[in-house]
Amino acid sequence: MTLLNDISATSGIAGITQAERARRLADAGAAWNARIADDPANAQLTYKVTGRGVGSVATEIRAGRHRFLVDEPGALAGDDVAASPVEYALGALVSCQVVVFRLYAQALGLTIDDISITAEGDLDVRKLFGIDGSGRAGFHDVRVRVDIEGPDSAEQYENLRRVVDEHCPVLDLFANTVPTSGSLG
Amino acid sequence: MTLLNDISATSGIAGITQAERARRLADAGAAWNARIADDPANAQLTYKVTGRGVGSVATEIRAGRHRFLVDEPGALAGDDVAASPVEYALGALVSCQVVVFRLYAQALGLTIDDISITAEGDLDVRKLFGIDGSGRAGFHDVRVRVDIEGPDSAEQYENLRRVVDEHCPVLDLFANTVPTSGSLG
Repeated sequence: MTLLNDISATSGIAGITQAERARRLADAGAAWNARIADDPANAQLTYKVTGRGVGSVATEIRAGRHRFLVDEPGALAGDDVAASPVEYALGALVSCQVVVFRLYAQALGLTIDDISITAEGDLDVRKLFGIDGSGRAGFHDVRVRVDIEGPDSAEQYENLRRVVDEHCPVLDLFANTVPTSGSLG
Repeated sequence: MTLLNDISATSGIAGITQAERARRLADAGAAWNARIADDPANAQLTYKVTGRGVGSVATEIRAGRHRFLVDEPGALAGDDVAASPVEYALGALVSCQVVVFRLYAQALGLTIDDISITAEGDLDVRKLFGIDGSGRAGFHDVRVRVDIEGPDSAEQYENLRRVVDEHCPVLDLFANTVPTSGSLG
């Protein structure tokens, strides 16, 4: 067993049957449809997180009742006690893809026995450190590789992947511009 | 004491003096400058994370030696045992801003006694659920509010904020398009 198994075993994530997951996804979709039909304003969600700087360059994030810690490795002046901001960004992308693969596999009648997704992002640190101002600060290329085990055909999973990419909130955040404003409180 | 304090107290994040943080940041910057002067290819980093679907719609993320769990609330068919993908995306933004505020406060000779950052993102779930294909799947507006305590002037901190926004990798990811490709493994 890997550490990953240990995390899920102690986190409150229980095993689930395909039928139970399908029921949950169908119920969730039906409930959102009903809420939005009742009042389109119910489709509008505002997510909020707050972070407080701790230690050298780390941040404690609070998102509703959930908490997580973000740090940097020693080469970026951190204590390396947690993943870094750009790793959390890639993790957000991977985990959002998983949710949307679950949702549209259900919608299209496909079965996913197991899903693993790897995201790689290339970044040039010269802009971050002000060594060269000509490039960009963030990722200049991101690659997502999806590994699915299941009984359906490669063509069906490839069609699913295209549908997922049209509907994935965090992929949209990566692939398109988001109007973002900043201010001092 | 809040839960946030408990997290940092048990995470290995130790208190740090302003002088120690300044030394670490200066050392990190000097080391990167030297590495990149030695060979510009040293500026090119590739970050990689892998996630495995677990439970209903959750994902266990592995980023180097670090692990974290992502889930959804019950309304999105999850078990709500961890923050959701879009909350991790906002957390990545907040924590990246904290790092870059530390870095450029040091570079500009400003002092930050405490920093807290809140990010809010507005999202319309109709695209995600395929109820209306006309909108976008992800955030259509994101607002970042930075609260700094310290001895320098509001004007100096506002100048710092503008410099930070030019150099922040995750803000760049939000505010600009990232070439992103997907494939089945």
